[in-house]
Amino acid sequence: MRQSKLFTKTKKEVPTDEVSKNAELLIRGGFIHKEMAGVYSYLPLGLRVFKKIENIIREEMDAIGGQEITMTALQNPELWKKTDRWNDQKVDIWFKTKLKNDTELGLGFTHEEPLTSIMKNYINSYRDLPCSVYQFQTKFRNEIRAKSGIMRTREFVMKDLYSFCKDETEHNKFYEKAKEAYKNIFQRAGIGHLTYLTYAGGGSFSKFSHEFQTVTSTGEDTIYINEENNIAINKEVFTDELKKELGLGDNFKETKAVEVGNIFTLGTRFSDALDLTYQTEKGDKKPVFMGSYGIGPARLMGTVVEALADDKGIIWPESIAPFKVHLLSLGEDENVKKQANLVYDTLVKKNIEVLFDDRDEISPGEKFADADLLGMPFRVVVSARSMKEKGVEVKKRNEEKGKVISLDELLNLLKAIS
Amino acid sequence: MRQSKLFTKTKKEVPTDEVSKNAELLIRGGFIHKEMAGVYSYLPLGLRVFKKIENIIREEMDAIGGQEITMTALQNPELWKKTDRWNDQKVDIWFKTKLKNDTELGLGFTHEEPLTSIMKNYINSYRDLPCSVYQFQTKFRNEIRAKSGIMRTREFVMKDLYSFCKDETEHNKFYEKAKEAYKNIFQRAGIGHLTYLTYAGGGSFSKFSHEFQTVTSTGEDTIYINEENNIAINKEVFTDELKKELGLGDNFKETKAVEVGNIFTLGTRFSDALDLTYQTEKGDKKPVFMGSYGIGPARLMGTVVEALADDKGIIWPESIAPFKVHLLSLGEDENVKKQANLVYDTLVKKNIEVLFDDRDEISPGEKFADADLLGMPFRVVVSARSMKEKGVEVKKRNEEKGKVISLDELLNLLKAIS
Repeated sequence: MRQSKLFTKTKKEVPTDEVSKNAELLIRGGFIHKEMAGVYSYLPLGLRVFKKIENIIREEMDAIGGQEITMTALQNPELWKKTDRWNDQKVDIWFKTKLKNDTELGLGFTHEEPLTSIMKNYINSYRDLPCSVYQFQTKFRNEIRAKSGIMRTREFVMKDLYSFCKDETEHNKFYEKAKEAYKNIFQRAGIGHLTYLTYAGGGSFSKFSHEFQTVTSTGEDTIYINEENNIAINKEVFTDELKKELGLGDNFKETKAVEVGNIFTLGTRFSDALDLTYQTEKGDKKPVFMGSYGIGPARLMGTVVEALADDKGIIWPESIAPFKVHLLSLGEDENVKKQANLVYDTLVKKNIEVLFDDRDEISPGEKFADADLLGMPFRVVVSARSMKEKGVEVKKRNEEKGKVISLDELLNLLKAIS
Repeated sequence: MRQSKLFTKTKKEVPTDEVSKNAELLIRGGFIHKEMAGVYSYLPLGLRVFKKIENIIREEMDAIGGQEITMTALQNPELWKKTDRWNDQKVDIWFKTKLKNDTELGLGFTHEEPLTSIMKNYINSYRDLPCSVYQFQTKFRNEIRAKSGIMRTREFVMKDLYSFCKDETEHNKFYEKAKEAYKNIFQRAGIGHLTYLTYAGGGSFSKFSHEFQTVTSTGEDTIYINEENNIAINKEVFTDELKKELGLGDNFKETKAVEVGNIFTLGTRFSDALDLTYQTEKGDKKPVFMGSYGIGPARLMGTVVEALADDKGIIWPESIAPFKVHLLSLGEDENVKKQANLVYDTLVKKNIEVLFDDRDEISPGEKFADADLLGMPFRVVVSARSMKEKGVEVKKRNEEKGKVISLDELLNLLKAIS
């Protein structure tokens, strides 16, 4: 894409009301727009990142047999009364609204209730199990404070998958598959090396849940990492008893981290309340055993910014970068412009995603600063100097110095890595 | 996909509270689930159709230079007060809600206000124009009655594109391009032959807007079609004066139709109210000239069902069908099952989308009825009879009789058409 056509522009000023690094960099780069506290729109560059994350998650959910659906934001109170989650004293993050006839409705903050209700139409027999269903859908949460940029917002898309099994044994098998799928997601999104499977508080049906926590200094959570076993424990359940139970010894490192995903055994909490049962092979009636598995693509995006950015700007992993290459044409020399256009056309023809800074009357310094702020993995510069050396200057975003190579070498470099 | 793994199942009963054909067929087929009046979830088969429609629309919007973003449902009242659209007396379809501190928020029913506000950050000069921006985003409309299935709902995804131009001349050029893009969309979605560009009521800045109206007996609108010119006029503006003005003669046919899209000249209604201006080449300040362009993918989906279904079920156009082929394995004969699996594997390997009815203990009659209800374009049957004739029986959904052909012939047939 030609940057001269992109409607967003970068900004030098830091928004005064933003305290989080992710919001500051994403707003300055034109990735997102703040509508109000905790409510952000996604502009073209931001939406490209968001969709790449969404696709990675979708592929991993499909790979474990998840079937995709979309449920609704508007929620019928009757279902939530049955699970005792309608009352604002019990759940304090509801946004509620009303129909014209004054009937109260809720805006879903999660979807166990409506999905359990849908599945009553389709699960009757042991033959219908196991199955798992997921969606990418907008949640609304009436958070009192929202000051972590896109990491904790009042309106956000969440991937929530729910599993339906015959019993705990079948559930545990699926749960382990989901764990691996989650590890794949964080690995593919470029924060696998910073992300730990973390023991956290459970519920009535399981001793623990599992979180995936990514180490960043600005994280809201405190975790204790055991490097030998590549595992962590959330401060809330970090006890000598648990350390012993997990056989993890005493070698832990305390750190701040962000929860980028969680998986949870629900057991029969919702199937009991909403009467989701199946007939066993012997003809008995049994409640379905459930699990839930959440990831917020925007929180993952914000975490990548927080964890990987440097003081010049964002550093996107290649898998989720809006474009793989940021091509810069420097100066007003017509030969340079012509050569930069040729490089652009060649990359586009080879299906390499490239943002082309073809803007006139922008100084080299500003173009370099924008490239650092926007954070594409490869910066490719065409200038009088690179043309004298008969090539283009290529530099990775996380490298200090670039080198001049030929266009053919550039194509090999970019293709070898993709 | 193997139908034995699909979690949804078809139903014989018609939901008693549904009066529309689209909801009846889509619910019976397991495409959608009704959460409450005017609020529907999309199940796997329905979501596949929805996404294919979305992709067609996205390709056509990208082709005219639209840049994709996503705005939010939660709306800040301040913006809407400036355009005089916050008051419930003026706009009677708001859903409103509240933050914890009692600040009132709205749930967006359209997005002129927030986008105009975003563009104030990015449009300064004539060099920033023209540009156009679109999204697929969930709208909320507090409709008093909602009885048209997925055609008119309280929560639905809409593609809304907004254009920003220097003046009316530049706007008119873009408007014509958008018109053609819309024609392409309906053509590609399989209802081009039933859909008419229709003159409808305008606003303060244009004499008319344009609707795209699809002929169906259950439509809410009445239009007058002039076949020679392939154009229609909405009843609300059908006058002798207009007929003369458009030079359309007197040969009109009255019919019921559904509005599947509309395009609208906004002029400076929103840029004036929200102060979206640009500097001209001469240095003057002028308001930006805007247009809006809407399509609801779900309404399009419902319209396809209403317009093309027969008394046995849905007939999907190939471009938006959940699967191209419905493969049926009939009976419990092991050789038939083996052959059907071979056909399935072959089609999957050739990247042909196929739903494989591999379910045991389901009678041929039930499988045929399901295939008719679900409406894939090609039905392919493997049975003892087809195997005796050394082939598979293929029948298009809208044909009366099938014919037995070899697997190679089937592949050629399906590939030739894709």
